[in-house]
Amino acid sequence: MRSPVVKSCCVLFLILFLSRHYSVSATKKILNPKKPSKRFILYYHDILFDGNDVANATSAATANATKLGNTDFGKLVVFDDPMTKDQHLLSHPVARAQGFYFYDMKTTYNAWFAYTLVFNSSDYKGTLNIMGADMMREKARDLSIVGGTGDFFMTRGIVTFQTDTQEGTKYFRLKMDIKLYECY
Amino acid sequence: MRSPVVKSCCVLFLILFLSRHYSVSATKKILNPKKPSKRFILYYHDILFDGNDVANATSAATANATKLGNTDFGKLVVFDDPMTKDQHLLSHPVARAQGFYFYDMKTTYNAWFAYTLVFNSSDYKGTLNIMGADMMREKARDLSIVGGTGDFFMTRGIVTFQTDTQEGTKYFRLKMDIKLYECY
Amino acid sequence: MRSPVVKSCCVLFLILFLSRHYSVSATKKILNPKKPSKRFILYYHDILFDGNDVANATSAATANATKLGNTDFGKLVVFDDPMTKDQHLLSHPVARAQGFYFYDMKTTYNAWFAYTLVFNSSDYKGTLNIMGADMMREKARDLSIVGGTGDFFMTRGIVTFQTDTQEGTKYFRLKMDIKLYECY
Repeated sequence: MRSPVVKSCCVLFLILFLSRHYSVSATKKILNPKKPSKRFILYYHDILFDGNDVANATSAATANATKLGNTDFGKLVVFDDPMTKDQHLLSHPVARAQGFYFYDMKTTYNAWFAYTLVFNSSDYKGTLNIMGADMMREKARDLSIVGGTGDFFMTRGIVTFQTDTQEGTKYFRLKMDIKLYECY
Repeated sequence: MRSPVVKSCCVLFLILFLSRHYSVSATKKILNPKKPSKRFILYYHDILFDGNDVANATSAATANATKLGNTDFGKLVVFDDPMTKDQHLLSHPVARAQGFYFYDMKTTYNAWFAYTLVFNSSDYKGTLNIMGADMMREKARDLSIVGGTGDFFMTRGIVTFQTDTQEGTKYFRLKMDIKLYECY
Repeated sequence: MRSPVVKSCCVLFLILFLSRHYSVSATKKILNPKKPSKRFILYYHDILFDGNDVANATSAATANATKLGNTDFGKLVVFDDPMTKDQHLLSHPVARAQGFYFYDMKTTYNAWFAYTLVFNSSDYKGTLNIMGADMMREKARDLSIVGGTGDFFMTRGIVTFQTDTQEGTKYFRLKMDIKLYECY
């Protein structure tokens, strides 16, 4: 009964509606928290300089703790730490973590990080830039990957920290679960 | 006159053209500065440690001002500040702001911030990561929300700062107008 | 032979498939590393405060180098530096770079930057927020533009650093090649 023109118009409106709908849902689909487009786990090793161990130390406090509480509030540590695929400090590093953290709570240990993962291996060349709160009392805490370069061009994502070991004030190791959601 | 095959082809080309067009415009449409997909206002309260008021202070200078000018150039303050829905310091905090700021001009007060808003309430669980210049002479100034976690998974946006009050060097309050444009 | 309904259904499935396909590829197409949507080169001039030259200095060390190695590990410098279109320090600045860098290697000079480019001219009003590692031994190194405001609303991109000159500890100039890939 309907003319072909009317039918074509109906189809076109449907197309418009669906293409708009699908473009949005497709964009969202990429960003399902449980389905990163790339994922890998690395271990971060931090050996704090005590004034003597230049050969082994990988980080140093450049600003000391203030007197606001007894949990190092304000202590600021700069680091150039090795990242390994397993938990062994002496394994071959697959990246360096370069940046800083500081403690920022007066009642408990709590930290804030900003750093770059620098990759220069046969697997990856490039960097990931990361910042966020490290709420040390929580078992797992999420920080933001806010940008990337090289093989990680323009990427974004989440890093989940878990404390893997803590040996006094001298050494600690974090498990970093790196999840990339936007890759190009 | 035209065969059904030719007609179908025409329709398909139209579809291709439109679907491409719409997918791009849909993506851009989400990011209209005046239409954030989520928006809320919070107040940031900063009580600087003076050496004695451990109980009340929420921030402390971990690096002192340099002698470059008389406006605290280089003074670096670490904070763990309460965020409230209204202007009252003693209102129940709905989030913590954890991070740092420093002063960076030799002729006037001007600051730079990097911090995380940590939400842990029935309304929201998660974090927002923020950085940018706080040009204190301007009435309103915009910083970038560069990432988020938890309920704010992968979000981006803008925070607009306005100085709400300034009481000497001891206390100041900022109105933070939080606008999220990319939510997932 | 086929009924019009069956034919319409086929066309619709094709539409669904294509619209989804195209929405994704269109999004990716925007982010070709070699084709930024905007690009410009600026020069960054840093004159480090030596204790006397308040009039000329544009940056100052707020935390001194630690004793971890001899390459200024941990030295943290806050800056408010002029950005010019050509290499001349005294050219009219088109933006300010406000932020900080610190040195973070014990065997060689290597730095980490976080800062805001503040534009307030007839060309541009707004800011770009940047962070990343400055691996000074490399000829060119990429940092992330993680957000923007004003004319650079919600932008992202890459800045490529090249050392343009280095005059002792007093002055250095970086060429910053600014490439924006996501503009709105």
